[in-house]
Amino acid sequence: MRLFVPDVIRRKRDGNPLSGEEIREVIRSFTSGALPDYQMSALLMAVFFRGLDEREQGEWTQAMLASGDVVDLAGVPGVKVDKHSTGGVGDKISICLAPAVACLGVPVPMISGRGLGHTGGTLDKLEAIPGFRVDLDPGRFRDQVRDLGLALCGQTASLAPADRLLYALRDVTATVESIPLIASSIMSKKLAEGIDALVLDVKVGAGAFMRDLADARRLAATLVAIGEGAGRRVRALVTDMEEPIGRAVGNALEVAEAIEIMRGRGPRDATELTVELGAEMLVLGGAATDLDGGRMAMRQALGDGRALDLFARVVEAQGGDPRVCEDAAHLPAAGEIEAVRAARGGYVTEVRPRDVAMAALEVGAGRRVKEARVDPATGVIVRVKTGDEVRAGDALCELHHNGSGRDEALARLRDAFGISDEPPAPRPLVVERL
Amino acid sequence: MRLFVPDVIRRKRDGNPLSGEEIREVIRSFTSGALPDYQMSALLMAVFFRGLDEREQGEWTQAMLASGDVVDLAGVPGVKVDKHSTGGVGDKISICLAPAVACLGVPVPMISGRGLGHTGGTLDKLEAIPGFRVDLDPGRFRDQVRDLGLALCGQTASLAPADRLLYALRDVTATVESIPLIASSIMSKKLAEGIDALVLDVKVGAGAFMRDLADARRLAATLVAIGEGAGRRVRALVTDMEEPIGRAVGNALEVAEAIEIMRGRGPRDATELTVELGAEMLVLGGAATDLDGGRMAMRQALGDGRALDLFARVVEAQGGDPRVCEDAAHLPAAGEIEAVRAARGGYVTEVRPRDVAMAALEVGAGRRVKEARVDPATGVIVRVKTGDEVRAGDALCELHHNGSGRDEALARLRDAFGISDEPPAPRPLVVERL
Repeated sequence: MRLFVPDVIRRKRDGNPLSGEEIREVIRSFTSGALPDYQMSALLMAVFFRGLDEREQGEWTQAMLASGDVVDLAGVPGVKVDKHSTGGVGDKISICLAPAVACLGVPVPMISGRGLGHTGGTLDKLEAIPGFRVDLDPGRFRDQVRDLGLALCGQTASLAPADRLLYALRDVTATVESIPLIASSIMSKKLAEGIDALVLDVKVGAGAFMRDLADARRLAATLVAIGEGAGRRVRALVTDMEEPIGRAVGNALEVAEAIEIMRGRGPRDATELTVELGAEMLVLGGAATDLDGGRMAMRQALGDGRALDLFARVVEAQGGDPRVCEDAAHLPAAGEIEAVRAARGGYVTEVRPRDVAMAALEVGAGRRVKEARVDPATGVIVRVKTGDEVRAGDALCELHHNGSGRDEALARLRDAFGISDEPPAPRPLVVERL
Repeated sequence: MRLFVPDVIRRKRDGNPLSGEEIREVIRSFTSGALPDYQMSALLMAVFFRGLDEREQGEWTQAMLASGDVVDLAGVPGVKVDKHSTGGVGDKISICLAPAVACLGVPVPMISGRGLGHTGGTLDKLEAIPGFRVDLDPGRFRDQVRDLGLALCGQTASLAPADRLLYALRDVTATVESIPLIASSIMSKKLAEGIDALVLDVKVGAGAFMRDLADARRLAATLVAIGEGAGRRVRALVTDMEEPIGRAVGNALEVAEAIEIMRGRGPRDATELTVELGAEMLVLGGAATDLDGGRMAMRQALGDGRALDLFARVVEAQGGDPRVCEDAAHLPAAGEIEAVRAARGGYVTEVRPRDVAMAALEVGAGRRVKEARVDPATGVIVRVKTGDEVRAGDALCELHHNGSGRDEALARLRDAFGISDEPPAPRPLVVERL
């Protein structure tokens, strides 16, 4: 098939749907380098304005999937279920969720990403564990899912390469913030994992990429439609991202908190989110008949040490020091801890997630550019949640740093909290289920 | 100034105006090659959707103008006036209009383009005259305007180079059909000619780029606003392009028709258009006090041979064979002429300009790609105008060809005419004046 690309761009620009053949050819020739960036970026901008309908969305995602390999987990018994979060602040849930679900008999082949922008990435967090390797080759990934029920690894170059190329182009052409493009990026990578079912945690609020509910709902519905169109069972939870999840923001600090959650002693919101997402995964994986049964099983696995036992074995299998599961002193620690204190008493009305995230970024916990290295020890421990009552002088949070970026981070943190005489209205953690 | 280009694209994408500094920097760095094509094409697509407001439009045009040289005609006495047409089928008006206006004392520094798509270009038509050179350097161009009152040349690489680069990119990224981009492209080139005033012939209808009146009116108003914003006097006529202008479509055929118009024996519509546009130019140039006076002067110059005399001198000055002005036999002629005849009698209701244009293109009168060579001898002579009464078997048109493309062209021409029992409603030639 020879495509006249300007006609394809024009058709999308004018609001007409593209054929499956056009979509496949565009993605294929872009990935091969035959279709120049300047035509793809014009098409991406047209998609930004015109969107993709459900059929186009499915075909676009499948074309991205077809640009690379798909992990073959057919030899692993059971319903393979993964979870994906659209990205938040303090989102360490994968680290405690995956072992809890896997220890209950549902295999979890989890491929995660690195942090960029204000959100952290699960890979960076796991690498805070001394020795932990996230670069499993597909064979070892499959074997570990079969043997332990869980593997935690990074995306290899061979899975959905079109996504890497497209993302790099979107990043420099202001075409990132497009629901169809976000959805096809997420789903092409997830479908490449060889999963049978998927639970999506679509974040909404000040700390999320989707700041309002209508967008989050639209993204969630698009993701579910793509996954179901590809023959997978998919559930999506739209969850609150108005304040950091749990208390820790920063790589080693978040691993320590995830371990606390697996000891049944984690912060209430982070534990509840783990339980809710896990219950959905257990139902999809056939290990629970309903959500209440799933919730109960999750609480038990987190309370009785089974989740943590499995996590320790996964850490060991992937080259990491399993003693971190016994004692957080085996995790890297920052040289200095400084508190930010309340200037007045009252109720905490806001813990602004982007300010906290940017403070962590300032002291090296995240990346401004793809090439940057993170300092695994640094970050923020938030001591208060919205609704808490504080007195003047109480610690609101602690900055864990190694000198660099300290002043900027403290300035950010002093702006991060709202305190008022009136308590704020409570917010539900799970805003909507699709 | 260091610009973060994705933010500029994002701002336009989200419907916010760009600052003059941003526009200048984007055009400047694109022209220098520092800003990559893929960012410019995303920005162009965002402009397609969001437009440019009047200030942005002026600054965008000025930035394109500033990318190159401006012809200095300050040393040429008089008000220099040019005409620009947005492109139609059979539009040879420049060739007879410019000498008529110039011989009446208004200097015309005319820089024209080549045909692309379904429309022909004045340069290609002039080059049908044996020996005629359109590549005058700026000094010779200026001297000829001073000495003869008229020069007809092509755009040099040094005038508005940003326009050439942008047009090439727009052509392959489906961002041609954008009124702000069309308007800035036209006006940056026209302002670079060193003119004092400009008459615009904005075509509307089936054979024009603007098919409906609202778009044509919007383009005309944008062109006038840019020109006036740049301190030039500008008039725009929106004129009918529902059927070919005059009878000839094809390069030598159109030159011959333009010469007939300068003999006072041209087709009525083409002559009227020449007179109307010329009257506007004469008023702008101070050679007529009002349009009626301008019309009368134009008719005289076309009727008494003065326009043709000047044209012959310009042809000679630019290396061409002036005998074409005496006898069309000095123009290249096609080897074969075949008529297309009416299958039935009735009134001609339609002469579809794109079908006629495509027929001419098929036999080599136009270009499908920039690099193609045209055959100056080929084309179509349309024997009927809408409203004419015909009998079955009457010739509707003649195809002038040299063998190549003949079957496809005849098939096109057989589809080009509508004949009905009822005469069509007459259409005004000048639809609107701005």
